[in-house]
Amino acid sequence: MTYAISVEDIHSAAERLEDVAVRTPLIENVQLNEITGGRVFVKAECLQHTGSFKFRGAYNRLSRLSAEEKERGVLAFSSGNHAQGVARAAQLLGIKATIIMPEDAPALKLAATKGYGADVVTYDRYTEDREEVAATTAGDSGVVIVPPYNDPFIMAGQGTAGLETVQDLRKIGLTPDQALVNCGGGGLASGFYTAMYDAFPNLNGYVVEPEEFDDVKRSLETGDIQTIDFNARSICDALLTPSPGKLTFPIIKDKGVTGITVSDDEARAAVSFAARHMKLTGEPGGIVSLAAILAGKVETAGKITVCIISGGNVDPQMHTDCILNF
Amino acid sequence: MTYAISVEDIHSAAERLEDVAVRTPLIENVQLNEITGGRVFVKAECLQHTGSFKFRGAYNRLSRLSAEEKERGVLAFSSGNHAQGVARAAQLLGIKATIIMPEDAPALKLAATKGYGADVVTYDRYTEDREEVAATTAGDSGVVIVPPYNDPFIMAGQGTAGLETVQDLRKIGLTPDQALVNCGGGGLASGFYTAMYDAFPNLNGYVVEPEEFDDVKRSLETGDIQTIDFNARSICDALLTPSPGKLTFPIIKDKGVTGITVSDDEARAAVSFAARHMKLTGEPGGIVSLAAILAGKVETAGKITVCIISGGNVDPQMHTDCILNF
Repeated sequence: MTYAISVEDIHSAAERLEDVAVRTPLIENVQLNEITGGRVFVKAECLQHTGSFKFRGAYNRLSRLSAEEKERGVLAFSSGNHAQGVARAAQLLGIKATIIMPEDAPALKLAATKGYGADVVTYDRYTEDREEVAATTAGDSGVVIVPPYNDPFIMAGQGTAGLETVQDLRKIGLTPDQALVNCGGGGLASGFYTAMYDAFPNLNGYVVEPEEFDDVKRSLETGDIQTIDFNARSICDALLTPSPGKLTFPIIKDKGVTGITVSDDEARAAVSFAARHMKLTGEPGGIVSLAAILAGKVETAGKITVCIISGGNVDPQMHTDCILNF
Repeated sequence: MTYAISVEDIHSAAERLEDVAVRTPLIENVQLNEITGGRVFVKAECLQHTGSFKFRGAYNRLSRLSAEEKERGVLAFSSGNHAQGVARAAQLLGIKATIIMPEDAPALKLAATKGYGADVVTYDRYTEDREEVAATTAGDSGVVIVPPYNDPFIMAGQGTAGLETVQDLRKIGLTPDQALVNCGGGGLASGFYTAMYDAFPNLNGYVVEPEEFDDVKRSLETGDIQTIDFNARSICDALLTPSPGKLTFPIIKDKGVTGITVSDDEARAAVSFAARHMKLTGEPGGIVSLAAILAGKVETAGKITVCIISGGNVDPQMHTDCILNF
């Protein structure tokens, strides 16, 4: 089977991102090790430009556009993190960006996206299809649509977070037993695991989703792409995708990755733990892999475990509610 | 003039700390650059083990004890960050630690220090002298007192944060125009600036203190060590030292460093900014150098500025108050 990306594509993306993206730290925390009885390494991707890993894929994708495509501008649809990643990458590369965002996206994400110079168009997440809204907004302008995950350059860009994790673990001579990755459409998971399994073929991989958005988990269990229904709700706004992508899913599936889920309260507890003990701001949808570890969803005692805080763009009200009440 | 430490002592400390301390990232933030009109690099030392830079000096100091001294155990007096640093370093090195802490230290700091296995003794910050309490507690037990800043191994250990900053700036080919460092007793400032001025002799250095705890600023202005009075109050609990140290002050003074101060509200605003935009938890006393930049206390437009978030051990109530109200 041929996959949408290889580890070489991730190395190529890493070259594009050198001195452009933040090389985020892989953090080990005493309290977390004590709780788990093992060693847990957290890729702190909330420290990435725009506050999430999405900048990596967006910049890699936009940097590959032809001069003529750059002239036409780009359009993206996103709940907020891809929005900011594309907006900032476009700003750095001098490209005009239009972003379609759900009207109930966190205010912080809407404001930040506009702050990076993008035009923002909003829609109703529960009654409108965002790809249709995007097509309507684009019209016949020739604007280049930048998909959130189902694109090889996006996937390879996100994979650089996995490549850095591999390099940091090798530097200290460790082979991880398992890794957990937050999963919406699978852009991060497909890239991350392409790099991680290439280096550590005996790894046990997990993708983590909100309970009601378990489309990837069910897809992995059935072997075919499954979809969530419109009644599903979660505070993990970054992970509310209806199904894994046609390009991302085969990679995740063939690695033998397992799907697990966490509740909204488990995500809230992880946001609180990160702020209190790890000194990091995480958003609910960016912290589900840490939440799964803290909630004991995987066996960690005596093991070396990797997870990721993939985003930290949380509204202050939500953030402080988590810190005080969880 | 002979100083208590040289840059070689910092290199030696860095060897002790390799693979023991976190090599914390030097973070550049788009929003911060926009606000300042320059480039600002923040050493994110809140990501250090125990949530502050204090682990560096404590581990370097304790690792130099003889087997016989280790057997006798260590005693430290601290408002909370040095406490945790010593407690954790002692835990790693198998040394018994007793820590004298003010009874009004943040609950998070008291709990964490106990969590690292130390015995904690409390005292009244405003009516008792902590060095006397330490001497009384020590009695004739032969315990080794680990001072918070006035010690060459402590100072050299803290200096490794400066050495890493030098290395990271050189890696991207930048020479900073200015650096701002949070200052209590001057352990961090003396070490940090020993490394920074060695690499960048034309640097403009600043030490930043809470308004009512401006002992270092006044000491620099008069040329002699000045002391604050017992009526001074600040939320910056990590910086409530009465005067700079006899070993730290000559280094800070002879570099030509300037003292500046920030109000408690300016510190609160910086805690909020760090949580919202930089995705980092900072404590008031650990964030005054960033606060000074955000409050416009130094000229930043068109300049390359370095500062530090030196600690993130803030109680949840204080943290959320800052995020919501500043």
